[in-house]
Amino acid sequence: MSKLFMFEKPVGMRDTLPELYELKRQVRDGIAKEVARWGYAPIETPTLEFYETIGSASAILDQQLFKLLDQDGNTLVLRPDMTAPIARIAASTLKEAERPLRLTYDAPVFRSQQREGGKSAEFEQIGVELIGDVSNSADGEVISLMMASLKQAGLENFQVAIGHHGFLNSFLYEVLGNDARVDTFRRYLYEKNYVGFRNEVDQLTLSSIDKRRLKEYLGLKGGPEVLEKAEALVESSEAKTALKQLYELIEVLEAYNLSDKIIIDLNLVMHMSYYTGTVFEAYSEGLGYPLGSGGRYDELLSKFHDPEPATGFGLILDRLTEALGKSKESIMNDVCIIYSNERRKEAMEQSMKLRQEDRTVVMQDIKGIKDVDAYSAQFTEVIYLVGTNGNGGGAR
Amino acid sequence: MSKLFMFEKPVGMRDTLPELYELKRQVRDGIAKEVARWGYAPIETPTLEFYETIGSASAILDQQLFKLLDQDGNTLVLRPDMTAPIARIAASTLKEAERPLRLTYDAPVFRSQQREGGKSAEFEQIGVELIGDVSNSADGEVISLMMASLKQAGLENFQVAIGHHGFLNSFLYEVLGNDARVDTFRRYLYEKNYVGFRNEVDQLTLSSIDKRRLKEYLGLKGGPEVLEKAEALVESSEAKTALKQLYELIEVLEAYNLSDKIIIDLNLVMHMSYYTGTVFEAYSEGLGYPLGSGGRYDELLSKFHDPEPATGFGLILDRLTEALGKSKESIMNDVCIIYSNERRKEAMEQSMKLRQEDRTVVMQDIKGIKDVDAYSAQFTEVIYLVGTNGNGGGAR
Repeated sequence: MSKLFMFEKPVGMRDTLPELYELKRQVRDGIAKEVARWGYAPIETPTLEFYETIGSASAILDQQLFKLLDQDGNTLVLRPDMTAPIARIAASTLKEAERPLRLTYDAPVFRSQQREGGKSAEFEQIGVELIGDVSNSADGEVISLMMASLKQAGLENFQVAIGHHGFLNSFLYEVLGNDARVDTFRRYLYEKNYVGFRNEVDQLTLSSIDKRRLKEYLGLKGGPEVLEKAEALVESSEAKTALKQLYELIEVLEAYNLSDKIIIDLNLVMHMSYYTGTVFEAYSEGLGYPLGSGGRYDELLSKFHDPEPATGFGLILDRLTEALGKSKESIMNDVCIIYSNERRKEAMEQSMKLRQEDRTVVMQDIKGIKDVDAYSAQFTEVIYLVGTNGNGGGAR
Repeated sequence: MSKLFMFEKPVGMRDTLPELYELKRQVRDGIAKEVARWGYAPIETPTLEFYETIGSASAILDQQLFKLLDQDGNTLVLRPDMTAPIARIAASTLKEAERPLRLTYDAPVFRSQQREGGKSAEFEQIGVELIGDVSNSADGEVISLMMASLKQAGLENFQVAIGHHGFLNSFLYEVLGNDARVDTFRRYLYEKNYVGFRNEVDQLTLSSIDKRRLKEYLGLKGGPEVLEKAEALVESSEAKTALKQLYELIEVLEAYNLSDKIIIDLNLVMHMSYYTGTVFEAYSEGLGYPLGSGGRYDELLSKFHDPEPATGFGLILDRLTEALGKSKESIMNDVCIIYSNERRKEAMEQSMKLRQEDRTVVMQDIKGIKDVDAYSAQFTEVIYLVGTNGNGGGAR
């Protein structure tokens, strides 16, 4: 093979070496346990799906999809998220299962990156979907379960921003009147480009009242008092209904004793276009991107001819481990038994015994080592069983 | 989206529903624990790799590779095995790590299937690689660790067939004299087409002695006595060296007390062309295909400019769970607390308390359920906290 490619990986692809792997495993297992205790059942879906089914339902930009052709010429995609595949299952195999349906997953998802810029093109996502429950309790449950999961992972310094796509869209439509303008402003908010937003407001032909309303909207970020300010800005019944949902949601989260980690952010716009109601993102201090996110998607299931409400969250495992920092305990190489052929049996018996005591034991034939000193320096304890019995044995 | 594709998955792709998932998780966790106790460190590699690097090193037929193009026009593949990616890491990032190097993985691998015939195109593989140890102890260790893993998974009825690619190739070359003929006979053995093998022997222009040697070769399957019979069939020093390795390996496995589950099968030819020495496959009674396999691959690392010996095994998780049969205990939906808004706080406190006792608790707002009887029938215990305190409460 050519030297050029020999050790290279495709853009955005990573190896995970043992130390980081152990940290990921601890976090993953902790979250899986918490989510199981809340009654969510685990499922797995394939890495490859049909583009027509999952590619389009996932609402990921086409240029971010990894696409390939199968032998019959159908376009396949590497799944860009887990919500759409789970919607497919909920609408087919699990169509007759009792609702509300609580499901959880832990799987890599794939989004192509244009160039190497530190962004992952494959990342492990752990999340839940709560399907068939329209109540605010369902949104409150997934948000509080996400927060319980972050705590379980060992994270203390995090915040959750809560917005509402229904409220945002109603407000923008009320003021701007047409889809094209609404899209423009949604885009500014999604990019957190507030300067662009203000400039756009100044350039538009709008009443001074509406201009003021748009600019005041940018201030709708903070504690529960934000909801009162928001109320003064809207007139449509859709917007009022959305606000009522947020009031109730805050009540639910107060009952969970979680309101100190919550901020209301009515400027929050999510990447996934399938969200319809409450949306949320979790942040950690000092990390420039969200640890995870979620929200209500009441229209997605109807793409699979199964109209029903749903809500869920997804956490990105690599970002979680980054927020946690390196594991404090580095991996201890516990015991190594270095033996020669004559004492193999003895070495095996000792290994077996120590492993039963839950210790990690490397059993190593001395013939397989080039530099015994360098090799044995990796272990906390080295036992030599070399030569005939009584000679050369003993612990270091 | 079109109805045709709505619920379909690509050929060979599967969903895993909760019950099977739980069984897979038990098996996976059990094996991971056993492998860790033997001192193997876990790593992860990306799903996508460059075709030029991993696609060719993996030695999987081109038509079995899932290929796609990246944005720069390079061909990528979904990894068809884990051995080649780990060789890439061992030869680069871990080049300076002490040898022998013990690594383990647990990841899906991908092999395209021509049509739907029950064969998986994506399957989870758990395995180990032991790199930099040329001794027979290394082969003995990976075989016995594979067997310990199968036992750990709860499997009792299995057998491991052991062959030797070096011996097989030396013998065939000795008798047949050229690569083309050797390939033909290897192919018959790989397909277990012994009738084809015999017919081919009859049609070839060979001495009657060589014809007899070829046919006797087909009988080299059974206990350790097979090695003596094999000795009488070969003359080359390569073949004699290979046999010596097998004698020593059997000795190692006898020391592990594992010889009762071992059969020698010198007709064994593995799918992967990178194997050079000892090869082995694990079978379970009543299952038509191997649970896993492995062997020595002393040439693969040199493809990454890092010539060093290596050996390893890979188990296929889905086949293991199939061999084990369905999990005896079906998943118990433990407790459900059905509450109304007024008693939300009480419901939360009870849930929290029960979850701390490691019980699984679904907390369900009664507003989110359509059919309370059908929904609650799924649980072992249902606690109603509905209406004002003292009314309608209590356990069912």
